[in-house]
Amino acid sequence: MPHYNAPTRDLQFVLHDMLGVSAGQVPGYEDLLADFTSAVLEEAGKIARDVLAPLNLSGDQEGCRLENGIVRTPKGFKAAFDMMKQGGWTALDCDPAFGGQGMPYVMATAVGEIFVSANMAFNMYQGLTHGAYSAIYSHGTEEQKATYLPKMVACDWTGTMNLTEPHCGTDLGQLRTRAEVQPDGSYKITGQKIFISAGDHDLAENIIHLVLARAPGGGEGTKGISLFIVPKFLINADGSLGARNGVSVGKIEKKMGIHGNATCVMNYDGATGYLLGELHKGMRAMFTMMNEARLGVGLQGYAVAEAAYQNALAYAKDRLQGRDVTGVKNPSGPADPLIVHPDIRRNLMDQKSFIEGARAFTLWGASLIDRGHLANDTAAEGLVSLLTPVIKGFLTDKGFDCAVQAQQIFGGHGYVEDQGMSQFARDARITMIYEGANGVQALDLVGRKLAQDGGKHVMAFFEMVKAFIKDNENDAALKAPFLDPLKAASKDLQTAAMYFMQNAVKNPNAALAGSYDFMHLFGHVCLGLIWARTAKAAQAALASGTTDPVFYETKLVTARYYMARQLPATALHLARILSGAEPVMALSVDAF
Amino acid sequence: MPHYNAPTRDLQFVLHDMLGVSAGQVPGYEDLLADFTSAVLEEAGKIARDVLAPLNLSGDQEGCRLENGIVRTPKGFKAAFDMMKQGGWTALDCDPAFGGQGMPYVMATAVGEIFVSANMAFNMYQGLTHGAYSAIYSHGTEEQKATYLPKMVACDWTGTMNLTEPHCGTDLGQLRTRAEVQPDGSYKITGQKIFISAGDHDLAENIIHLVLARAPGGGEGTKGISLFIVPKFLINADGSLGARNGVSVGKIEKKMGIHGNATCVMNYDGATGYLLGELHKGMRAMFTMMNEARLGVGLQGYAVAEAAYQNALAYAKDRLQGRDVTGVKNPSGPADPLIVHPDIRRNLMDQKSFIEGARAFTLWGASLIDRGHLANDTAAEGLVSLLTPVIKGFLTDKGFDCAVQAQQIFGGHGYVEDQGMSQFARDARITMIYEGANGVQALDLVGRKLAQDGGKHVMAFFEMVKAFIKDNENDAALKAPFLDPLKAASKDLQTAAMYFMQNAVKNPNAALAGSYDFMHLFGHVCLGLIWARTAKAAQAALASGTTDPVFYETKLVTARYYMARQLPATALHLARILSGAEPVMALSVDAF
Repeated sequence: MPHYNAPTRDLQFVLHDMLGVSAGQVPGYEDLLADFTSAVLEEAGKIARDVLAPLNLSGDQEGCRLENGIVRTPKGFKAAFDMMKQGGWTALDCDPAFGGQGMPYVMATAVGEIFVSANMAFNMYQGLTHGAYSAIYSHGTEEQKATYLPKMVACDWTGTMNLTEPHCGTDLGQLRTRAEVQPDGSYKITGQKIFISAGDHDLAENIIHLVLARAPGGGEGTKGISLFIVPKFLINADGSLGARNGVSVGKIEKKMGIHGNATCVMNYDGATGYLLGELHKGMRAMFTMMNEARLGVGLQGYAVAEAAYQNALAYAKDRLQGRDVTGVKNPSGPADPLIVHPDIRRNLMDQKSFIEGARAFTLWGASLIDRGHLANDTAAEGLVSLLTPVIKGFLTDKGFDCAVQAQQIFGGHGYVEDQGMSQFARDARITMIYEGANGVQALDLVGRKLAQDGGKHVMAFFEMVKAFIKDNENDAALKAPFLDPLKAASKDLQTAAMYFMQNAVKNPNAALAGSYDFMHLFGHVCLGLIWARTAKAAQAALASGTTDPVFYETKLVTARYYMARQLPATALHLARILSGAEPVMALSVDAF
Repeated sequence: MPHYNAPTRDLQFVLHDMLGVSAGQVPGYEDLLADFTSAVLEEAGKIARDVLAPLNLSGDQEGCRLENGIVRTPKGFKAAFDMMKQGGWTALDCDPAFGGQGMPYVMATAVGEIFVSANMAFNMYQGLTHGAYSAIYSHGTEEQKATYLPKMVACDWTGTMNLTEPHCGTDLGQLRTRAEVQPDGSYKITGQKIFISAGDHDLAENIIHLVLARAPGGGEGTKGISLFIVPKFLINADGSLGARNGVSVGKIEKKMGIHGNATCVMNYDGATGYLLGELHKGMRAMFTMMNEARLGVGLQGYAVAEAAYQNALAYAKDRLQGRDVTGVKNPSGPADPLIVHPDIRRNLMDQKSFIEGARAFTLWGASLIDRGHLANDTAAEGLVSLLTPVIKGFLTDKGFDCAVQAQQIFGGHGYVEDQGMSQFARDARITMIYEGANGVQALDLVGRKLAQDGGKHVMAFFEMVKAFIKDNENDAALKAPFLDPLKAASKDLQTAAMYFMQNAVKNPNAALAGSYDFMHLFGHVCLGLIWARTAKAAQAALASGTTDPVFYETKLVTARYYMARQLPATALHLARILSGAEPVMALSVDAF
């Protein structure tokens, strides 16, 4: 069975050496002292290792089942969920006014990585609840907040997000679910929603569905859409649970992965719903929490890869196969461990350098969200809005690739289900699809985010890279191995952005044909920046006589690997982008 | 349910326009006239479409089960298998002396692609039989051939290959299965083999297991290994089936994919076996058929991708989502089809340009095997020996990537099992692992094949590319779009090969750290050459006033896509290779 140990040392490094959270530059960060964050992460790590990870493979194999209209989650999920609730782990960054712990988002994100790595499918029940909490917190009336939030913070009630319908996913303007206003001001909701994660289950007393539906008078397309709160059980005036609402599970989807989470077809048959936020402005309400939701999916991408990597690494150290060509390393055994072989090492270093970079990138993104929310820093808000599709798209594509690479190290044993490596690949696969498929992320990046606010956020990003290089270029230990490749990669990104600007007006397809490559190019530059900053932080720690030199030297080696073997991908992405729309669009539809 | 239509037009193009098989330069090719090959491919296509493809998803969902020691295959497999036998489809390239059709290997490969695309798991029962047939055909005594081959050609008896044991796969020198000689000259085989595809099933009367085992006196490592024929049922002197042999199924593995094929743990408990080939030279006997087996797996990689692509294409034309930014294309509908979007088009063109190139590459490889066997062309034999790890490793990596890309076009619908797109990705995944994991292919390429026969095969390859460029460089329509990029890519490959030669002696890791990139770099140059040749053939057809101009114009567009957007990957692979062993090997094992 796969194992998992939380990378608390690396999380501490990112929080303190990289982001300097305990310096307290953001309101709410002043409590994030190293001892405190360490204690929280260690405790989360224990639960992840001892409670959640052991339920991951069994949850995959057992899956969820629909019994008489009620979804049963896999064995052990309920007890684990109760334990998470009792420990307050479901509400780290929720408002204390509703029972939350009031921690900054960056801390909830660090802890979230640990739980996702241990058991992604399990963690989604809480994750979706958090999304629904945020929507009600941002757009609900005081009464709605009082009614729902304390229960949702405690995860006594969980939440869902209902967007997709059979005929439309990305293109929500086509949605058909209807909302009809009732004399008491409530609505009757009628329609079918699909792919509803955690749509039903046996972990909580009630489920609060947030449903996009079309109320009369809003016009066509996305403009006519509103957001509604539709509880599974209606809530009495005294807060107790009332009658079953007109919402039911049509079926549970059989999926490639995340079997432990029930992905449901939800049928709304005149279900009672309550308007959340403004009428006909449901899309806006739904999208206000999009950055966090997408960052959370990017996190899933690398968090699953982390779990897969840990097991691949253990296998590579343990499995004896072949001999080191430069000389036997395990003379007393029948063969050397896999890890002596350069191609196995390449595979592991690919994973390691991606995952650690992705972790720092994601926590940086979370800290930017905190700056936006807690310090009203609009520049930070704009930057993270720009980076969100990169975090989501790049980290999930690469996270899946890494899970596949980890599986590869096991050879045939990676293909059989009882080792758990297949599950990591199958689970990671969904992250490229949901919360906006990665092609849609690329479109969002190139079609919207680049030009947002007159392009000032992407300019700020370029300035940030440039300033980092300039500030450090006299440091010879940084320049050649880190700053020079970063500079070249950043130049590739700027060239691509310039090409889009020069061509997009007369031919939008010139930008769109290169959008996916641009997302990856941008992702590499972000990780290049992260690794250059990491190298600087590691050098500083080593220079100051750290007691943990191996950790920091390992960081430098890993940084050099990323620079030498991953970052050069920017040139390939640029070459594709500069080939323009013609190769992509030349074939007529009929000729395919 | 997914559909499949055999790409007979493209197969005909490769066989005739590209390879010119009917020119009959190889003995046995003189019968491969266009009408004949077309009739065979069309008939195979009908069976694939109407019989095999409809059993693909159901076979995946039902899987195989072990009942009282006997494996039951999914519903419909037996009837389909009988139909394949009756039509002579199981023995296209087998020797007529044993009931085969006596066609060249290139033709069996073309037909094989069709059957694999339609149902890979099903086709493996015959595929493994063919491998065992080849081993007995090449190494068996006349008596063994007479006993086994007619039944195996007819697929009344099927075959298996038993190499892997729980503690060793790639490193067969560690294998422990024992063979003890008996007074009658037979052997008693004792040991456990794992991952045995088609290890047991209900499709045939008998199963002929080929088993690697260690007979006394052969020494340690691979030198002491011999190959044995171990029938499931012993065969009486009159050829009828006798007693059950001491071989049994321990369990069926639960795997990520190819559920329709039973992957078995096989227990040999003093089973009667018969030496095949020379004592202690079993590895050599096993490896004589390695080129074909590995080419067959490379074929699986792109053949599954072809099936996935066909379904992704149909979905992209059918699914209405969003609007073309350059102007509405489907004004009467609620949205435009997915295929109007440039990023969807990029995704489809990636698949199309890979799959068609891979098809021509593989059939070229098959024709080289034919030249070696039928015309005693040792240069062709050496070349295909060099290219085999590229065909296996590159085509399966890219084939899997394409299946994942095809799945992506379906969005959330690609993640649920009932659309079949998940199956394509899960099935394709095994091709990167079995018959030598792709890292082992890279090692074989760089560690053995490059330097084989003094490096003359790789030199011949470079000369071939150079000659093609030189012969055509006055053709302006070929030069800039095709020859120039091919030249640049080939130069990258030569630079990498030179780097290995210069560094490998003093530091073998310098070559091995770059082996995986070299395999991909080589693969791209091969497809670059294929697409340049394709462009030349297409131009010739258009110039000669073909009646099918759209087909050839489409080839030119697809060729340009590959050159513009895929071939530039060679520079990235070269950059990684030239970064050498240091980034890969710098970290000590303990620091991971």
